[in-house]
Amino acid sequence: MKAFVYNGPGKSALEDRPKPVIAAPTDAIVKIRKTTICGTDLHILKGDVPSCKPGRILGHEGVGIIDSVGAAVTGFKAGDHVLISCVSACGTCAFCRKQMYSHCTTGGWILGNTIDGTQAEFVRTPYADMSLYHIPKDADEEALVMLSDILPTGLECGVLNGQVQPGNSVAIVGAGPVGLAALLTAQFYSPGRIIMIDLDDNRLAIAKQFGATDTINSANGKALQAVMTLTDKCGVDTAIEAVGLPATFELCEKLVAAGGHIANIGVHGHKVDLHLESLWDRNITITTRLVDTATIPMLFKTVTASKVDPSVLITHHFTLDQILDAYAAFGNAAKTKALKVIISP
Amino acid sequence: MKAFVYNGPGKSALEDRPKPVIAAPTDAIVKIRKTTICGTDLHILKGDVPSCKPGRILGHEGVGIIDSVGAAVTGFKAGDHVLISCVSACGTCAFCRKQMYSHCTTGGWILGNTIDGTQAEFVRTPYADMSLYHIPKDADEEALVMLSDILPTGLECGVLNGQVQPGNSVAIVGAGPVGLAALLTAQFYSPGRIIMIDLDDNRLAIAKQFGATDTINSANGKALQAVMTLTDKCGVDTAIEAVGLPATFELCEKLVAAGGHIANIGVHGHKVDLHLESLWDRNITITTRLVDTATIPMLFKTVTASKVDPSVLITHHFTLDQILDAYAAFGNAAKTKALKVIISP
Amino acid sequence: MKAFVYNGPGKSALEDRPKPVIAAPTDAIVKIRKTTICGTDLHILKGDVPSCKPGRILGHEGVGIIDSVGAAVTGFKAGDHVLISCVSACGTCAFCRKQMYSHCTTGGWILGNTIDGTQAEFVRTPYADMSLYHIPKDADEEALVMLSDILPTGLECGVLNGQVQPGNSVAIVGAGPVGLAALLTAQFYSPGRIIMIDLDDNRLAIAKQFGATDTINSANGKALQAVMTLTDKCGVDTAIEAVGLPATFELCEKLVAAGGHIANIGVHGHKVDLHLESLWDRNITITTRLVDTATIPMLFKTVTASKVDPSVLITHHFTLDQILDAYAAFGNAAKTKALKVIISP
Amino acid sequence: MKAFVYNGPGKSALEDRPKPVIAAPTDAIVKIRKTTICGTDLHILKGDVPSCKPGRILGHEGVGIIDSVGAAVTGFKAGDHVLISCVSACGTCAFCRKQMYSHCTTGGWILGNTIDGTQAEFVRTPYADMSLYHIPKDADEEALVMLSDILPTGLECGVLNGQVQPGNSVAIVGAGPVGLAALLTAQFYSPGRIIMIDLDDNRLAIAKQFGATDTINSANGKALQAVMTLTDKCGVDTAIEAVGLPATFELCEKLVAAGGHIANIGVHGHKVDLHLESLWDRNITITTRLVDTATIPMLFKTVTASKVDPSVLITHHFTLDQILDAYAAFGNAAKTKALKVIISP
Repeated sequence: MKAFVYNGPGKSALEDRPKPVIAAPTDAIVKIRKTTICGTDLHILKGDVPSCKPGRILGHEGVGIIDSVGAAVTGFKAGDHVLISCVSACGTCAFCRKQMYSHCTTGGWILGNTIDGTQAEFVRTPYADMSLYHIPKDADEEALVMLSDILPTGLECGVLNGQVQPGNSVAIVGAGPVGLAALLTAQFYSPGRIIMIDLDDNRLAIAKQFGATDTINSANGKALQAVMTLTDKCGVDTAIEAVGLPATFELCEKLVAAGGHIANIGVHGHKVDLHLESLWDRNITITTRLVDTATIPMLFKTVTASKVDPSVLITHHFTLDQILDAYAAFGNAAKTKALKVIISP
Repeated sequence: MKAFVYNGPGKSALEDRPKPVIAAPTDAIVKIRKTTICGTDLHILKGDVPSCKPGRILGHEGVGIIDSVGAAVTGFKAGDHVLISCVSACGTCAFCRKQMYSHCTTGGWILGNTIDGTQAEFVRTPYADMSLYHIPKDADEEALVMLSDILPTGLECGVLNGQVQPGNSVAIVGAGPVGLAALLTAQFYSPGRIIMIDLDDNRLAIAKQFGATDTINSANGKALQAVMTLTDKCGVDTAIEAVGLPATFELCEKLVAAGGHIANIGVHGHKVDLHLESLWDRNITITTRLVDTATIPMLFKTVTASKVDPSVLITHHFTLDQILDAYAAFGNAAKTKALKVIISP
Repeated sequence: MKAFVYNGPGKSALEDRPKPVIAAPTDAIVKIRKTTICGTDLHILKGDVPSCKPGRILGHEGVGIIDSVGAAVTGFKAGDHVLISCVSACGTCAFCRKQMYSHCTTGGWILGNTIDGTQAEFVRTPYADMSLYHIPKDADEEALVMLSDILPTGLECGVLNGQVQPGNSVAIVGAGPVGLAALLTAQFYSPGRIIMIDLDDNRLAIAKQFGATDTINSANGKALQAVMTLTDKCGVDTAIEAVGLPATFELCEKLVAAGGHIANIGVHGHKVDLHLESLWDRNITITTRLVDTATIPMLFKTVTASKVDPSVLITHHFTLDQILDAYAAFGNAAKTKALKVIISP
Repeated sequence: MKAFVYNGPGKSALEDRPKPVIAAPTDAIVKIRKTTICGTDLHILKGDVPSCKPGRILGHEGVGIIDSVGAAVTGFKAGDHVLISCVSACGTCAFCRKQMYSHCTTGGWILGNTIDGTQAEFVRTPYADMSLYHIPKDADEEALVMLSDILPTGLECGVLNGQVQPGNSVAIVGAGPVGLAALLTAQFYSPGRIIMIDLDDNRLAIAKQFGATDTINSANGKALQAVMTLTDKCGVDTAIEAVGLPATFELCEKLVAAGGHIANIGVHGHKVDLHLESLWDRNITITTRLVDTATIPMLFKTVTASKVDPSVLITHHFTLDQILDAYAAFGNAAKTKALKVIISP
């Protein structure tokens, strides 16, 4: 089968690989119908993710059709249409019992990382009963690919950890795909104000379309003042960091109101300055989280009920043969205006 | 009346001052029966608390008897025995309605800070109906002084924010009075293990008596390894920072388990390094809080029911005339082994 | 001044009464600009509310302008535009400290019940700092009258107690004003399905306009089957009782899913059968609540942000002189199709 | 092997049965070392549990040693010492993902009910990875049998659902084994007062030893007054029903304070009167629950930390050969003073 393979920093290729086979009785083999590229995949290609070794098929998102299942899989059978969680969960370890699937002692984010992933014609998915979700045959498959990772990430790490509440104020720093996913899912809780902060006017314009009440281009260094003006000098109840840089996290420290929440989504490569000398007495809560995808069932219900339209995140379409073009488009988003790209084997 | 007055950095004295008078209809004048010294008072004396100006009577803890009340006070009358919260709360502002009394827009921690305090024969307490609490005439007044500030601080900032749960593991970094207050109140929730970390063997021995299951002297730089050994290499569910230094906060970052809580109590004068490069994906919650004293009613019930004995924190007794000695003893705790000192006018 | 007075069962009149005066330093006198009639007022007129004695001016909802304030009121001054909570709260008793204002030991629902109310030109409001809310001069006063009682009632007793969640299913039994208020505010949390059940097709049609996804006329006795069909035979996650009769409460017992919530809003005059023989093992939560109006600040923010339009509940307008007509219209809703009526002095 | 078999109402016997075999790849066969009898077993013997058919081996509690495991079991191997949950959970259905294991769509309470149980030399346990728990070889096996059902039942249905808090007041109606289990585990949260109500002075005396602060023999019909006297006429914050009769549930309705919780544990065979005419405005929460055993890991940690000693519930010991005597002792507790009896194959 065709598969997109990471061959070391800066090296990758569409290659021929053997179709995967059941390795454990809890596995399923899924024929991929739609997959996508995540920002993490770009990090891997640069060599920034040491757990991902050369030779690995990338990709951890997708929808497909069950090809075969292991002997212990009871919830799925060949022919079932499924959504693939980016997180594989045994369901039985102490972390899984707390729905902290990201830290499953034998799973977690392994697809396209420590085992072969979804940017291929077929993928082996461990712990199928816990990690796959039934979808209708006639579902909008492209939209549902957004439930593999990006929407749960925005919702769990940003919105739920940030405790967004009706009428409250929210600032989201970073209007990339994951910041926009937080924007889309924050609206489940009817905040009064969602302020989107970014350097890219195109993305801010999209944020406006997606429901942001206010947008701030932070290029002039005046984002903090702008937020304070919008919030009667109180700051925001929830600040969501969706970039992963010290400067953006530290901006969140400044614009959060007393009693507020800083919910980190960003993947950070460096330490940040935590200004406890001004925050120690401000009753602040700061959270970090790797997405657990525990909210996929909730998200599925909200999509079914038209409470959110994940397809708005999709800007480009490619075949698996064109995956290098897909990476080029996704990796050069400032120019291509790509958010999420769909890849169809 | 006699009162202990801050006269600028390094300068303080027991002085004669006029007895305070009702200034607002919600005020009460309380005749002090017992008060104490807080670590914050030492900071003020050094000049580290800019909000506190020379000429201020210090002290924000105490029990006493109502001398007189303003026209709008309905819950108290002259002769009532009362506990004084270190926080004055209007009860009606947006923060007070959330029980975030520390951020009351016209109150908060003002006693012995921006208005005269309790280290005197009498004190004017604003918002009496919200900020005083009835106590029985025959109550153990000295023990109840611990409910003005230190026990609520340990409980709210440490134990509740740290979400201590039955069977879970807790590490408390800093075995000073506030760390010990966290230790005492953590036991309300029956954690399985409470590890106390400090540099002072005397305080660690006290912690053992107060219910710590394990103590670690961190002088050898091996506290992290010791915690990991005690926790099957997982780290602790709750790490409570009760020192206020970058090194101790950063130790908490290292010894907290995935999914765990870092609850800051310490008063920090400097920024700390937040190692998001290792914490971003570990589902950590970090909290800060200035004590709200919202738990005084709960604490009063637990004291009445003998679930906690606050008097164990009291090591020394002085009269108000001896307050300079009291400060000397409290300020030199390494030598005097002082925890909390009681001062009786 | 003119005031609508209850003179015993079946007897009431618009009378001349002296303008109220400040009785306690925490009081305010408010000149009423808009008020309304509550279902409870109808109960009083029938003689069903023993706490309300003949001679009482009715009404517990309204917006107005401060005429004067007592000496201890600090948050309001003459000329301020205000919203009046139906609940008066001292702010300092044990219940108020838990935001359970409805059970304030010296307040609660007393307006138009044990003290004179808002269906008059002026009203004396106790505990003004806790029980009044600033509104802008140019606010939609009629819409905001809905925040005095009916919207907080639907939100607190129905939606919050019922723990409505994104994507979940909700059934509301009773499409009268309070059931519709629950319907409007449930949408803050983006449930996937809101099923409205009533006997009146007009009200069900209104419910559809207000956001119900499904409506069921229960006249044929088949509401339960209809709900089960809509919910894959699981029942609903949240069942909200907004009628106050045994039959409707018992319907909620049947249509709630395992693990679900029954949130009672209805005012019940009789006991109901609780079928523990079938519910004991179904992990059900049943709640009751008298509105606390603790959510008025949240509601105000959601109205400002256009997350809910309270004015849709208003069907009729009257002057205070026409209040008997207003009662007639409101009391005969099946014919007049009245939801909430606005009365302007 | 020997096994205790239900043969229809009033008929049961110790019989010879074939040793069970692995039926699904997720099964384990466990050699029983210790088991016990539950009140539910008595109900089965009377014919009151229609799901349990004649021919069934009874018992749903126990500890043992793994004899063999199915191909999909990864967490256990032959020779492992294990605790058996009374609930079998697939871990993957919608209920299991919410930790509502009792409602697992293919599991739940099936052991000794719809499949053969633990009162035998061996038992087949479905979903072994989710439903068994490792215990040390040298553990107090008899004490840990209490974690199969009775302690989680008291904790989950009574204490957690009842939201017991430090300093608060609790009444437990029914001092049988499950009421006593609630009493033992309530103390994890340091309530200020635990009032035990029963008709049997012996059990009340035991309750006193187990930590009840007050006991009331309700035979004189004055339990309500006694509770009101103990609680300043407020009633209790948490009322736990541990009997299963209308009268005891209705007593809970009367003795719960405004804002309080009624947590039902009792197995009810009949409807009860819910007095909504007096409860509708009292902000009450009523919960029901079939034990999920989701707290077994927490309980295991508290036992290890000596926060609770489950062995105090054990009053009698029998061999499997003596199981009829064991049932006689357990079934006649008023005379034998039996709480839990241990049976050793």
